Amino acid sequence: MPYITVESGVLSDTQKEELMKRLTEISSEIMKIPQEFFVTTIKELPDKNFGIGGKTIDKVKAEYIQTHNKHI
Amino acid sequence: MPYITVESGVLSDTQKEELMKRLTEISSEIMKIPQEFFVTTIKELPDKNFGIGGKTIDKVKAEYIQTHNKHI
Amino acid sequence: MPYITVESGVLSDTQKEELMKRLTEISSEIMKIPQEFFVTTIKELPDKNFGIGGKTIDKVKAEYIQTHNKHI
Amino acid sequence: MPYITVESGVLSDTQKEELMKRLTEISSEIMKIPQEFFVTTIKELPDKNFGIGGKTIDKVKAEYIQTHNKHI
Amino acid sequence: MPYITVESGVLSDTQKEELMKRLTEISSEIMKIPQEFFVTTIKELPDKNFGIGGKTIDKVKAEYIQTHNKHI
Amino acid sequence: MPYITVESGVLSDTQKEELMKRLTEISSEIMKIPQEFFVTTIKELPDKNFGIGGKTIDKVKAEYIQTHNKHI
Repeated sequence: MPYITVESGVLSDTQKEELMKRLTEISSEIMKIPQEFFVTTIKELPDKNFGIGGKTIDKVKAEYIQTHNKHI
Repeated sequence: MPYITVESGVLSDTQKEELMKRLTEISSEIMKIPQEFFVTTIKELPDKNFGIGGKTIDKVKAEYIQTHNKHI
Repeated sequence: MPYITVESGVLSDTQKEELMKRLTEISSEIMKIPQEFFVTTIKELPDKNFGIGGKTIDKVKAEYIQTHNKHI
Repeated sequence: MPYITVESGVLSDTQKEELMKRLTEISSEIMKIPQEFFVTTIKELPDKNFGIGGKTIDKVKAEYIQTHNKHI
Repeated sequence: MPYITVESGVLSDTQKEELMKRLTEISSEIMKIPQEFFVTTIKELPDKNFGIGGKTIDKVKAEYIQTHNKHI
Repeated sequence: MPYITVESGVLSDTQKEELMKRLTEISSEIMKIPQEFFVTTIKELPDKNFGIGGKTIDKVKAEYIQTHNKHI
């Protein structure tokens, strides 16, 4: 009974449905376990509650955009 | 210091209190560890953020109701 | 599809079976969700990997035994 | 900085590499976030520590094999 | 790529920033791993969803204040 | 009752004790909650079970050493 969790920023309903569908398909294929046994949860967190390198994600994003000149 | 987490759909205050009380009692009894050492958290997630077999829970529920002719 | 996790010290097989059975029964009853929808995992951690009040559990246990004159 | 965790039974090194690679690719594509921002962990648990419907996974597997006449 | 999670009551933005910064600094120092590799998340839960000794945190707080004559 | 978890590679006993002590001190100070209310767990995972950017940590480490000319 594999259990997959995704912690991320806010997502649309379509993204959530797509994620659960695709992650289950892929994992089922790799693990050789029927899809019906997979449980998935998505935990959406505000940018203020997510950090990398000790900085909140909104600051990481701003720096990334500046360096790479594209949005994330 | 056992730590018990429940991830579920939205619950009433009474259900949450009851869950923490009963799960702690039972686990304390089985593990032979005093109740005061137990920490419990409940993480309520919307149906859109919970999946089984690659499908969101609202679809799973609809199918279950159709097959079993009862609500969950 | 509720998901229940227990993080604890090392447990016997009987304790693990008992925990999964009883926690599922109780939660199913409180949440009004059929037992078949419950997923449970138990994560056993060594005492060195568990802390309370900033101290590892083996030290907490030693103090508790001294104060309460009983084992945990 | 999305974080993806998989809790499962024991896996081979190839399955673990494949899982991290594919789950990151898919999620990156759906979320429109560069792959380099994804963190993945795999938590392998013994069958005795995983339950569904209040029963440990080894019993669930045995019943599934009997009903579906195939291994999982 | 260490991953640190804090589950707590509601926090201010300053507390969250401070937590991510300091926890990453300290852990980086102890583990000898560069800060840039650390991911941190903060999961804020209402008092009703947090329990100790089988009681919700609001009751635990009330008792603590009565016994210690100070707020938490 | 804040709960702090660290997921990391294998650590020494001293590192684990130090982590629990310091993370609790810092968080207690920032959150204004007495240390005795903090629970900490450390989940040590093998490098094969940890990934970033879809690659297992052993590969990430090798690349980092090559680029930065120092060990992590």
